[in-house]
Amino acid sequence: MRLTKAFQPTLKEVPAEAQIASHRLMLRAGLVRQTSSGIYAWLPAGLRVLRNIEQIVREEQDAIGAQEVLMPTLQSADLWRRSGRYDAYGPEMLRIQDRHGRDLLYGPTNEEMITDIFGASVKSYKDLPKALYHIQWKFRDEVRPRFGVMRGREFLMKDAYSFDATYEDAVASYRRMMLSYLRIFQRLGVRAVPMVADTGPIGGDLSHEFLVLAPTGESGVFFDAALEEQDWLGRPVDCDDHESLATFFSTVTDHYAATDEKHDEAEWAKIPEERKREGRGIEVGHIFYFGTKYTESMGIEVIGSDGASFHPQMGSYGIGVSRLVGAIIEASHDEAGIIWPASVAPYRAAILNLRQGDEACDAICESIYGTDPENLLYDDRSDRAGVKFNDADLMGHPWQIIVGPRGAKEGKVELKQRATGERFELSVEDALAKIGAA
Amino acid sequence: MRLTKAFQPTLKEVPAEAQIASHRLMLRAGLVRQTSSGIYAWLPAGLRVLRNIEQIVREEQDAIGAQEVLMPTLQSADLWRRSGRYDAYGPEMLRIQDRHGRDLLYGPTNEEMITDIFGASVKSYKDLPKALYHIQWKFRDEVRPRFGVMRGREFLMKDAYSFDATYEDAVASYRRMMLSYLRIFQRLGVRAVPMVADTGPIGGDLSHEFLVLAPTGESGVFFDAALEEQDWLGRPVDCDDHESLATFFSTVTDHYAATDEKHDEAEWAKIPEERKREGRGIEVGHIFYFGTKYTESMGIEVIGSDGASFHPQMGSYGIGVSRLVGAIIEASHDEAGIIWPASVAPYRAAILNLRQGDEACDAICESIYGTDPENLLYDDRSDRAGVKFNDADLMGHPWQIIVGPRGAKEGKVELKQRATGERFELSVEDALAKIGAA
Repeated sequence: MRLTKAFQPTLKEVPAEAQIASHRLMLRAGLVRQTSSGIYAWLPAGLRVLRNIEQIVREEQDAIGAQEVLMPTLQSADLWRRSGRYDAYGPEMLRIQDRHGRDLLYGPTNEEMITDIFGASVKSYKDLPKALYHIQWKFRDEVRPRFGVMRGREFLMKDAYSFDATYEDAVASYRRMMLSYLRIFQRLGVRAVPMVADTGPIGGDLSHEFLVLAPTGESGVFFDAALEEQDWLGRPVDCDDHESLATFFSTVTDHYAATDEKHDEAEWAKIPEERKREGRGIEVGHIFYFGTKYTESMGIEVIGSDGASFHPQMGSYGIGVSRLVGAIIEASHDEAGIIWPASVAPYRAAILNLRQGDEACDAICESIYGTDPENLLYDDRSDRAGVKFNDADLMGHPWQIIVGPRGAKEGKVELKQRATGERFELSVEDALAKIGAA
Repeated sequence: MRLTKAFQPTLKEVPAEAQIASHRLMLRAGLVRQTSSGIYAWLPAGLRVLRNIEQIVREEQDAIGAQEVLMPTLQSADLWRRSGRYDAYGPEMLRIQDRHGRDLLYGPTNEEMITDIFGASVKSYKDLPKALYHIQWKFRDEVRPRFGVMRGREFLMKDAYSFDATYEDAVASYRRMMLSYLRIFQRLGVRAVPMVADTGPIGGDLSHEFLVLAPTGESGVFFDAALEEQDWLGRPVDCDDHESLATFFSTVTDHYAATDEKHDEAEWAKIPEERKREGRGIEVGHIFYFGTKYTESMGIEVIGSDGASFHPQMGSYGIGVSRLVGAIIEASHDEAGIIWPASVAPYRAAILNLRQGDEACDAICESIYGTDPENLLYDDRSDRAGVKFNDADLMGHPWQIIVGPRGAKEGKVELKQRATGERFELSVEDALAKIGAA
């Protein structure tokens, strides 16, 4: 994309309502624009990040056999009356009446609807296990929306639901999701640590939150360094084998990790000092086993191998997709701007033409841009070099390909890595190879 | 995907409320499920079709320089009060109050919001032209929703908006969109004919509807055969050149095409009999120039080259993405089921194992399936051959790879093309080559 054509309105002024770095940077870099309190429009560069995150989530959910569906945003109140949650849910539920006076609501989550869809089609234990997910906009009518997309009202969430015949199978489904989540966050380029969370009346240890480490996080976190040293992508786990899943799961649960709410000083004291990690975290995911809560309340049964019917066991698994855009920025920025991990960056690199109109500079820039116009942002404005440097740092492309008149004459460009600030003087070919490999 | 694992609940019974073929077939083939009146959940195979359509729309909109954004589903009523449409819009607008009593609405369209976003960032004629689009769920509270996704209440639409400095530039934008639409429908494998539509008080000839030809269409259509013989994908048009766009545009407008509402018997009589085409059509797209209607009412101005400010010229351009799933089926089915065009089919081919458990059959099926498990549907159920034939015809995969014990011994499979019914006895390699090339 050529910056002179792009719809990416950067702002010079920091908007007064933006209190945290990600909110300020998303507005300054032209990624989103607020359209109402807690409701945002995604501008092209922001949407590219959102789509990149979605795609990684999708691939890793598919990889564990979950199947993608798409449920609507609006739901019938009657569905929620069946589970008993319609009256129980507080003022965060946006309640709506249609032209015939029928009660609808904007879905804040989808347990009821997926249970109903599942129950209408799955009749036998032979069709289990099943895991279904969707990536859809949700609404929670926060009383004071703030922090930009981190606590918006209309937000994009991936929510998955598992259905199993037995508790043991449900545990395996839970562990598969744990693995999928660890792989997702690793691919997103953020460190997200799973922490035991409240299970409420169900009990057990099958509830984990995933927190991205960032100094501005809402919760204090305490964890064993062993948890941040793992390479989940490289670990072979046979997702069809309960033993293999159990072995993997113990590498997570054998190590201490807790938010300040659940922090246990006695357990913490047992960890060697050099492995203690303290910090703050932003919740970006939550996985949760809840047994037959919805299949019972909504009367969903399937036939077992013995001919008797039973209520399938369920779990639900959420990732805050739009929230992650903010969380990644909180975890990865500096005073100059955003530092995108390569996997989610809107563009792989920016090409900075330091002297637009200079024949050699223009020719080199065009030849680089022509190699992949979809994934390169060409700053072809006639602005000063300083403006281009500042905007590229603000927008946070992983690489900057800097083309000035002196180097251009010799066919050289300067490559700057945004995350480290490292600079390399390279031929065009070598520069392209380097950013391609990253 | 293995059918024994897939969540694709086919129905034997035709649901009583489904009056038209696409609605019946979508429910029978397990593509969607109604969750409330006029509101549908998309099951995995249906979602794959929806995403394929989306992707073609996206690529062709990008190809003419339109940029993708994503506006939220909920909008502030105040935005619509600025244009004067809040009170004018009828009961099809879903009006909502949030917890603070503020008026929101579920967007039925986005002229106001995009004009506001544009106006906040674009200040100079130098930034024109701009075309922005998004693919987002909309809501129209139809008094009697029916025909499945063809006239649902929550529906997916691509809507684009163009901003230009002059009328001439706006005409060029309009023509670019016309070309983009013709290419989109050609790639989708349906014949969609552009017909002059009402422009209302603005006048002129810059309003066209696109109708997919199908016997169950809501409108009668009359058009010159010259319009269906065009290869829009092969036609070279320079979208930056007004002349080239004008030449292209005249190939559309030089030929008669009208719905029954606008049909002109005198003009029709002038067309040679052998070129007259009559039929019925389903509206799937609409492009519309409306000048400064919103930029004026909402007070949006940019600075011109002479230093004087002006109201940019606009047009809007819609495609009913979810409606198209139904329209394509209306245009392409037979008594046995759906006949998907290859570009939108949920899977490229189905593999029918006629004797599950037979060593040779299983081995061949697995080897074929292993070449592309993402895009092949393997019917690995232990059902009778007849059940598999019927379901494959119902689901409408472009190709069926039929593996029976006799052929399997010799390494042969039978390939059936769904659209023509043609059958070929081929080696596995030749069969894969044939479906790959299609």
